[in-house]
Amino acid sequence: MSKSKMFKQNVMTYMGFESDFESSEAVVFGAPFDGTTSFRPGTRFGPAAMRQEFEGLETYSPYLDMDLEEFSLFDAGDLDLPFGAKMKSLDMIYDQTKAILSAGKVPIMVGGEHLVSYAPIKATHEKYDDLVVLHFDAHADLRSDYMEEAYSHATVMRRVWDLVGDHRIYQFGIRSGLRDEFAFANKHTILEKFSADTLEDLVKTLAKTPVYVTIDLDVLDPSIFPGTGTPEPGGLSFKDMMKVVDLLSHLNIVGADVVELAPHYDNSGASTAAACKVLRELTLAILKG
Amino acid sequence: MSKSKMFKQNVMTYMGFESDFESSEAVVFGAPFDGTTSFRPGTRFGPAAMRQEFEGLETYSPYLDMDLEEFSLFDAGDLDLPFGAKMKSLDMIYDQTKAILSAGKVPIMVGGEHLVSYAPIKATHEKYDDLVVLHFDAHADLRSDYMEEAYSHATVMRRVWDLVGDHRIYQFGIRSGLRDEFAFANKHTILEKFSADTLEDLVKTLAKTPVYVTIDLDVLDPSIFPGTGTPEPGGLSFKDMMKVVDLLSHLNIVGADVVELAPHYDNSGASTAAACKVLRELTLAILKG
Amino acid sequence: MSKSKMFKQNVMTYMGFESDFESSEAVVFGAPFDGTTSFRPGTRFGPAAMRQEFEGLETYSPYLDMDLEEFSLFDAGDLDLPFGAKMKSLDMIYDQTKAILSAGKVPIMVGGEHLVSYAPIKATHEKYDDLVVLHFDAHADLRSDYMEEAYSHATVMRRVWDLVGDHRIYQFGIRSGLRDEFAFANKHTILEKFSADTLEDLVKTLAKTPVYVTIDLDVLDPSIFPGTGTPEPGGLSFKDMMKVVDLLSHLNIVGADVVELAPHYDNSGASTAAACKVLRELTLAILKG
Amino acid sequence: MSKSKMFKQNVMTYMGFESDFESSEAVVFGAPFDGTTSFRPGTRFGPAAMRQEFEGLETYSPYLDMDLEEFSLFDAGDLDLPFGAKMKSLDMIYDQTKAILSAGKVPIMVGGEHLVSYAPIKATHEKYDDLVVLHFDAHADLRSDYMEEAYSHATVMRRVWDLVGDHRIYQFGIRSGLRDEFAFANKHTILEKFSADTLEDLVKTLAKTPVYVTIDLDVLDPSIFPGTGTPEPGGLSFKDMMKVVDLLSHLNIVGADVVELAPHYDNSGASTAAACKVLRELTLAILKG
Amino acid sequence: MSKSKMFKQNVMTYMGFESDFESSEAVVFGAPFDGTTSFRPGTRFGPAAMRQEFEGLETYSPYLDMDLEEFSLFDAGDLDLPFGAKMKSLDMIYDQTKAILSAGKVPIMVGGEHLVSYAPIKATHEKYDDLVVLHFDAHADLRSDYMEEAYSHATVMRRVWDLVGDHRIYQFGIRSGLRDEFAFANKHTILEKFSADTLEDLVKTLAKTPVYVTIDLDVLDPSIFPGTGTPEPGGLSFKDMMKVVDLLSHLNIVGADVVELAPHYDNSGASTAAACKVLRELTLAILKG
Amino acid sequence: MSKSKMFKQNVMTYMGFESDFESSEAVVFGAPFDGTTSFRPGTRFGPAAMRQEFEGLETYSPYLDMDLEEFSLFDAGDLDLPFGAKMKSLDMIYDQTKAILSAGKVPIMVGGEHLVSYAPIKATHEKYDDLVVLHFDAHADLRSDYMEEAYSHATVMRRVWDLVGDHRIYQFGIRSGLRDEFAFANKHTILEKFSADTLEDLVKTLAKTPVYVTIDLDVLDPSIFPGTGTPEPGGLSFKDMMKVVDLLSHLNIVGADVVELAPHYDNSGASTAAACKVLRELTLAILKG
Repeated sequence: MSKSKMFKQNVMTYMGFESDFESSEAVVFGAPFDGTTSFRPGTRFGPAAMRQEFEGLETYSPYLDMDLEEFSLFDAGDLDLPFGAKMKSLDMIYDQTKAILSAGKVPIMVGGEHLVSYAPIKATHEKYDDLVVLHFDAHADLRSDYMEEAYSHATVMRRVWDLVGDHRIYQFGIRSGLRDEFAFANKHTILEKFSADTLEDLVKTLAKTPVYVTIDLDVLDPSIFPGTGTPEPGGLSFKDMMKVVDLLSHLNIVGADVVELAPHYDNSGASTAAACKVLRELTLAILKG
Repeated sequence: MSKSKMFKQNVMTYMGFESDFESSEAVVFGAPFDGTTSFRPGTRFGPAAMRQEFEGLETYSPYLDMDLEEFSLFDAGDLDLPFGAKMKSLDMIYDQTKAILSAGKVPIMVGGEHLVSYAPIKATHEKYDDLVVLHFDAHADLRSDYMEEAYSHATVMRRVWDLVGDHRIYQFGIRSGLRDEFAFANKHTILEKFSADTLEDLVKTLAKTPVYVTIDLDVLDPSIFPGTGTPEPGGLSFKDMMKVVDLLSHLNIVGADVVELAPHYDNSGASTAAACKVLRELTLAILKG
Repeated sequence: MSKSKMFKQNVMTYMGFESDFESSEAVVFGAPFDGTTSFRPGTRFGPAAMRQEFEGLETYSPYLDMDLEEFSLFDAGDLDLPFGAKMKSLDMIYDQTKAILSAGKVPIMVGGEHLVSYAPIKATHEKYDDLVVLHFDAHADLRSDYMEEAYSHATVMRRVWDLVGDHRIYQFGIRSGLRDEFAFANKHTILEKFSADTLEDLVKTLAKTPVYVTIDLDVLDPSIFPGTGTPEPGGLSFKDMMKVVDLLSHLNIVGADVVELAPHYDNSGASTAAACKVLRELTLAILKG
Repeated sequence: MSKSKMFKQNVMTYMGFESDFESSEAVVFGAPFDGTTSFRPGTRFGPAAMRQEFEGLETYSPYLDMDLEEFSLFDAGDLDLPFGAKMKSLDMIYDQTKAILSAGKVPIMVGGEHLVSYAPIKATHEKYDDLVVLHFDAHADLRSDYMEEAYSHATVMRRVWDLVGDHRIYQFGIRSGLRDEFAFANKHTILEKFSADTLEDLVKTLAKTPVYVTIDLDVLDPSIFPGTGTPEPGGLSFKDMMKVVDLLSHLNIVGADVVELAPHYDNSGASTAAACKVLRELTLAILKG
Repeated sequence: MSKSKMFKQNVMTYMGFESDFESSEAVVFGAPFDGTTSFRPGTRFGPAAMRQEFEGLETYSPYLDMDLEEFSLFDAGDLDLPFGAKMKSLDMIYDQTKAILSAGKVPIMVGGEHLVSYAPIKATHEKYDDLVVLHFDAHADLRSDYMEEAYSHATVMRRVWDLVGDHRIYQFGIRSGLRDEFAFANKHTILEKFSADTLEDLVKTLAKTPVYVTIDLDVLDPSIFPGTGTPEPGGLSFKDMMKVVDLLSHLNIVGADVVELAPHYDNSGASTAAACKVLRELTLAILKG
Repeated sequence: MSKSKMFKQNVMTYMGFESDFESSEAVVFGAPFDGTTSFRPGTRFGPAAMRQEFEGLETYSPYLDMDLEEFSLFDAGDLDLPFGAKMKSLDMIYDQTKAILSAGKVPIMVGGEHLVSYAPIKATHEKYDDLVVLHFDAHADLRSDYMEEAYSHATVMRRVWDLVGDHRIYQFGIRSGLRDEFAFANKHTILEKFSADTLEDLVKTLAKTPVYVTIDLDVLDPSIFPGTGTPEPGGLSFKDMMKVVDLLSHLNIVGADVVELAPHYDNSGASTAAACKVLRELTLAILKG
């Protein structure tokens, strides 16, 4: 440690996200909230666990042959969200995204449970009214309400539909839900069960349309991503996901998030490593796009 | 399994709490809520973990020479509380306690985070306006608000003070809090730091006063009770707690709760075993009292 | 919780198995025994762990487009088996299966170690003397004895062969065993190493033959099912298993079991989730068949 | 590694137990059996876990100022016991103890569940018909049968009483049992609840009487020994146990065992370390005595 | 999060250590090295784990009635030490301590394994040649070499003795070591076995002598501090340690360290919580002194 | 246990490696060193964990239809390597390999971190100067130095290149590294990213060339091998690896190692089971070749 470093406070950022705010192209921030999680909580620890794990991660991607260090990226740290107050938490996340978008930068959020995605999608949709949402998940998240609550991890894509309307949400990898949710999707969204094979054709049609990408990491198979509250076998392999990210690199992504890592269920660290790689590749895909 | 048993649905109750509601003297129920927990969540799993652990527990107490099986006790199961909706959750717990009190039985709640205690204390205080609250905890829980929220695990005894007023709350084992909380306690409650040595004298003065006992299990030392979200070294030993329960058996306890077991941090099961024994002994103390 | 619910004892069943015995088509029960497990015990906790996990599971299957709630299913709870007394335990399981079969319902057992499968197969074979057994497993389980014991998890299919005779046991996914066991299989059973690709053709030939299906969950690859005593890499993927279940839905299944979940080795809960989905899909396959 | 060592097979013994059989004064062996454990199994892994942990343990005791290396001690390894066959297992342990006693050496067994203690006590009692048994445990283990089985971890001291008769069993630290067990003890054994304070006086009266010491490690408080199947808070501290061992060093111990370490519930290794130290101190106490 | 905070990089410091370097009275830094650990490594994760845990910790001490926030304290972060290069690592730590001492501030190091303490003691001794070292530990650490290496966690106090000479090292709580180490201590240091009862008298004699305090946290009993590589039962309780710290507050402490937390063996977080409280109380004791 | 066995010290070897040194064809030994591991240590526990796990493993391979028991194999146990002294450790491993090669046997080493592979490759290269190295790994390990150290787990293949020179190292499965490492590989080694598909053709060209095989087990996908310090998603499946081993059985393998199992991150035991099977199959491939 050089003496000059010794005079500074201890800084901890995602590896490769070490620029300052002004010069950055994209801004990552954490939204450590899991207040509506009904089964096994703990996604609140996701952003911090990934920041620690990033220290052991190379910034170079052999998939895309790009390096995070060749770009200007900023880590704004984690929001300090009040548990037990979900609407206030969503407001804080919304304000944060709004500020990043106003500065002309791409927001990349790390969750937290999936409900948190509502806030940046709302902010992004206000800027881009032709926004299309790509949703990767094991669960449809299309319930009208859950335990009598309108805002919940199980209803979040239904609330997003309230914003963006019919046929602007594309759902991939879905393998769990009520019979009603699949029926709703049949009418109002475009849903692919179990896999993401239709993405390739979709990419060709989207051209320069502004796209928001929300990745609930449980879209990955629990074999490679066990560290989540409701593991659902039968999901995408990591290689499938790398192919997804490669396809995404051809799109105009204006906002994105990666959610639902629950590190307490990740004894080996493999899930956190996978989450970090998805974040690295997604960021590079945004920068390339 | 006898054939007659085979025709019934699978019943799972706390061992020894196997009577029906009508004939019971005391009613136990779970309040699996941890929505305002700011650090490590998971107390929502407490009531279920204890129900499983009870299967390995003797109903006979060599401490009090009493046996749960000699009494009529009912287990009403766990409330189905909506995460992310704390005021609604508190209302549901309040209604449940009210119904038990109306039927002339003693309510015993198993948490959940400490905020849940507010509801049964409110219901009990409405029945007994001279209610005294005995509070065992590592934390003072006397903040006026926490992250701008009035109702929180860190404010619960302050909210209880709003109900019962000055000098009706006795706090034992407290070893963590803001300077302000200890200052507040100096004026408005009776607080013993680190231990519960003053309980013996207090018991003599309370006589037949109706008493509510709220035990945040983290009052126990983490050596014997590591399974909690915010372990605080320097607490009561299990033998101290057995002495406490013995003293409580001389009081007129009209309501009680045991909260803050977070079984995910209890690798060995020792914390859950300790929680079960505290529940058994506390129940017997109520029945003896 | 409605007041009427409050007056009932706490019931805990597999989600979707909420009918009464009389009206049910199929009956699930747990056989929590692991007394002959030679390596890592703990399958005794399997049935209870699955019952808890089921609470977070949808009853609707997007694979088969069927919903457990549309059928009448009964959960008879777990048998109370004496550890250290394996023959008595087998007798109790046998009696239970017998009673279910006599009532004209399909028995579905949740283990427990694989030895427990001997009892329901015996009972089922007594009712259907042309019974065929489909056996999914990583291990051949064909030893004549194990540590001088005739009845053991490592000998169970050999004992089943004693009952049903040559060429009535079909074994899939086998990738571990003594040289002798594979030699025995060559003569007396039909064994497919590593995979279950021959099932498709077999299904066509079985038509209405009564079939018993025994699934040792370690037939799944440990990547998706690490929670078992003797994980054997190189097994079926979850998607392979969903294809198996789809094929099974064309058969006349008269009894079934799912065994060998050891939840203590399932830190993330992913194995228990996989086991629950196998049970859900297998049940639906039986009902469809 | 010297070249000469390279030519030998890999030997693994308890540190300090490195003599050959003939020249040894005491012989340690493992009895890795947990077949009747009704709650959480895993004591079968106790002997192996302790052998690994011993590698990090000093052979010198600052308590007794003695060193294992100054004595001739032999480690006979673990018996290869058949799970699911408890009577055969007991026979094998009995034979092993018999052989050690015949050679004029002191047998020291490491369990395993407590039932295994029956076998060496039987063998030792056949050699010394005035044998007194000192029993340290959280549980009375005095049931006449358990789940209709006569031989079980919960009945073992009752079976020992069948052998040695009235008032020859001294029980210490007992804090769990049925009302009936405490009643039986009142008539037939000498039982001290919760602690071992009466040992000091007993030691004075026993003089040269042959003594067998059986230590169920759950007599220790779970704070220092969480790694066991049924942790019971309120037990002996480690310092209490060191005082016990110091007292034992004045007796004529002709056989001993240390049982019930279940290392899977010992995340930190502290329980295994405690078990190893109890074994070291007990061995030194025997040698001093 | 205010907008101004959003423009800054993510800072992570020990709670209450939030001043800048220049204005600070004491400086904490991490030395995450465990390269010579022979048994269970992982103390390298200690400093980071404590920084995370501090977020849940109050800065106010009810023991000393002082608050970290009332002082100016600086957290210099963790040194970036090369594993596999222990002498270079020690040099880096030495340089860091030297710089802190030169600036007239008190260095407080968080380990890492105990070997790291050699470096700050060397630097401190160069400034204060009458330095006395107070050493709290389960192990004597007085071997002349370990596996033929002079510098090791097992030799560190012997190397410190090389620096400070006879009778300037006071050792407390020691309960493990070779016979030779205790013999060495008899001649060259002042060693108290098992406890720290002699500290009270020592404090009176030391007056204004410059003192370095090195706390190997395994001096605490594993019941309260299981999270360490070589847990040794029979140690100080947390209350004993609080008494120690209170005594230390009367001394002239010119340097200090807290070492040997291995958070991977701390499933519940209780050890990390205890370590944080020891650091908080020790810091306050230094500031008061 | 037969009486004759009782008179021998406790021997613990890899199952099937039970011959004596002289008559053996191949010799396995452990190199439990992880001194330069920069992220999560613990591979030092790999050799012992595999020895324990082997007890539950069949010696017969259904993949190769061969049985370890049909060959003469010797287990020389683990080297006693000094942590914190890496060059000395490498020397000890080098001497051990040298002795095995001199006796005309094939050395098979079990790590430990990957740096340990340097020593046996050096010894083997001295015997076979046309040695070709096949390297299976997630990481390129081609840095010129790491944290200013030339010898490190991250530089080991660069050091091997110093020995064997250009185009004699074949690397498979590589999916992580600096941009510089991939550039170096482009010039000096033959590197296949992500998979091992080119091995089939390579095998045809190598004929009788002496080959050293070094398998960093993290080449396997973390889904099947989570138990390692730096899990990298996107690796080989177990079936891919079995195909690799089958191809290797056609080569002239003169030395081999299997490294980087870190059992503490292997909650389920599945990684250790996979490591054991790789060792079994690799050994059989060597014997067949």
